[in-house]
Amino acid sequence: TSEGHYKFISHENFEFELGGSINPLEIVYETYGELSPEHDNVILIHHALSPSHHVASHSEEDKPGWWENMVGPGKPIDSHKYFVICIGNIGSCYGSSSPLSIDPKTKKPYRANFPTLTMNDIVHSQKILLDCLKIKNFHAIIGNSVGAMLSLIWGILYPDTMKYLVLTSSSYKAYPANIANRVVQREVIQLDPEYQNGFYETNPTNGLKIARKLGHFTYRNPADLNQKFSNNHKIAPNLPCEVENYLEYNATKFATQFDANCYLYLLTAMDLFDVTRDYEKPLEVFKKIQAKTLVISVDSDILFTPQQQAELFQCLKDAGAHAHLIQHHSSYGHDTFLVETDVIGKYIVDFLSQ
Amino acid sequence: TSEGHYKFISHENFEFELGGSINPLEIVYETYGELSPEHDNVILIHHALSPSHHVASHSEEDKPGWWENMVGPGKPIDSHKYFVICIGNIGSCYGSSSPLSIDPKTKKPYRANFPTLTMNDIVHSQKILLDCLKIKNFHAIIGNSVGAMLSLIWGILYPDTMKYLVLTSSSYKAYPANIANRVVQREVIQLDPEYQNGFYETNPTNGLKIARKLGHFTYRNPADLNQKFSNNHKIAPNLPCEVENYLEYNATKFATQFDANCYLYLLTAMDLFDVTRDYEKPLEVFKKIQAKTLVISVDSDILFTPQQQAELFQCLKDAGAHAHLIQHHSSYGHDTFLVETDVIGKYIVDFLSQ
Repeated sequence: TSEGHYKFISHENFEFELGGSINPLEIVYETYGELSPEHDNVILIHHALSPSHHVASHSEEDKPGWWENMVGPGKPIDSHKYFVICIGNIGSCYGSSSPLSIDPKTKKPYRANFPTLTMNDIVHSQKILLDCLKIKNFHAIIGNSVGAMLSLIWGILYPDTMKYLVLTSSSYKAYPANIANRVVQREVIQLDPEYQNGFYETNPTNGLKIARKLGHFTYRNPADLNQKFSNNHKIAPNLPCEVENYLEYNATKFATQFDANCYLYLLTAMDLFDVTRDYEKPLEVFKKIQAKTLVISVDSDILFTPQQQAELFQCLKDAGAHAHLIQHHSSYGHDTFLVETDVIGKYIVDFLSQ
Repeated sequence: TSEGHYKFISHENFEFELGGSINPLEIVYETYGELSPEHDNVILIHHALSPSHHVASHSEEDKPGWWENMVGPGKPIDSHKYFVICIGNIGSCYGSSSPLSIDPKTKKPYRANFPTLTMNDIVHSQKILLDCLKIKNFHAIIGNSVGAMLSLIWGILYPDTMKYLVLTSSSYKAYPANIANRVVQREVIQLDPEYQNGFYETNPTNGLKIARKLGHFTYRNPADLNQKFSNNHKIAPNLPCEVENYLEYNATKFATQFDANCYLYLLTAMDLFDVTRDYEKPLEVFKKIQAKTLVISVDSDILFTPQQQAELFQCLKDAGAHAHLIQHHSSYGHDTFLVETDVIGKYIVDFLSQ
């Protein structure tokens, strides 16, 4: 419980929601700041689809994290004040159990034999770790995008463990337009001859790159792309223009870091996400939430549209939750939480001091 | 010059803007109504990327066209009054010269050896046909999407041949966000092992289907998709949900009709489209237009956004053109011109009677 990088290994069977189990369960995580003697200063941050548990650097030599300007000493989520923990999602490729993990039965990576993953599975794995760390209560649970889905599940499954819940650029279920985009991403990866039905020896980067480009469209608003490359001209068919080079650069960077199966498993978990799934009356599930909840919605987000977030907020209100909605104006679309950390940070600080 | 289906063959060399030539040049077209003795009742309709020159049926036995409710006796574009002609774009797969045409040198289809195609090439081929038909003047030239790009080029290259110009859901150049989407569509087709660098024996339908799904996202607004499938639930990873089935159905229908190379050539022509390309002062090109011009913009169009169409309108106004802008409200996005033919028809009728 002091600042650093950690790996947790459990040798209990970990059972997945839709069947299958793994053993061991491995979970990587990072912490910032010091746990107070009363254990009352914990902030759990959930990372999104592509980032890792490396939220911010621990030293000058350390590489910057995905929320570098948000977490650290004197920053909006101040590690002088809070004990911040971010857990690497199982299914992802940064060290927690995933399709890349070695299956003890075969001594080879699970690949496509890894059990189907749901958002609930990720939360259950986190709960095992946190129980083991004797962390039972949270000052706040904060998440963006997929991270907000996980945060919402925490608010529902363990409602009396947190004071504040912050849900940025997210929704309470997978919407058809989101599923449609992910279906195509999945199909592209599976079309790559190197994918080998998921049992590849080398990562099928061609398909993964194209899938990522497709995902990228939904992370930024088209108007932002048009603005950024306003002098863009396609001169000749075989001469890539600026926007093509930009997509290629970003997709290549992603495909050299991320594993195709991990990506596919996480996309499926997103498709299956719906906190109201098992409830005859959807409102019942929102009635469980006890935390003060902040929904931050960005007007240019075409992935988790303002409408989806307004619906999430309305569900919370209708269920009588203590909920607050911020409709933030920005041109950065879904990625705003990564770009405008100063404003988003201020929203969060103000909310946590209510 | 009476109603029917026709095929025109020219045995002059047809030279392409960016190099290369074909011989013969073949052009299919359909006409509706009768040409007046004064040749003053001609309406040229340009079709979009996927449809053919079959705008409407000619009899009850004939299959419906893509603008069935718009063109015909007593319909908004009334074939009792007008002589309507729609020309199959070269490059497309419905009978005009394209990568599917036989290269006389090899006696095999051109495939990827077909010359690079531009929108100007399509217009030049149309001009050859219409000159041959002795059609020199138009009451109106009307186009939607890609068809509006062709219409705009007509207005610029042959400004004194038309009274009215109607440009629906289009723009005056390819924007970065549009190019980005098409880049990914192209890459998906090329990833298909059956594509064989464009020299396939059987159409690479797997890649083509995925590309089409990706295109489809931009034809309809995500909110419309969410509305249409509001009861959609992804139950299990391998069980397709409603929106998946819908995309699959439409993509399969497209891929069984359209040729992959034709699609790729037309996408490239769209990427290269920019009427201001060769002008130091972009406004100069718009000053050429003499027709009364109507720009119809749809607020939910995420492909040719209202902003792009407002820019087109502004260019026309700044150049002193007689231009009118209709900002139409609809949830059907880019496809509105195919769906809301009653309203779009009324806009056009009102405009043509000014």
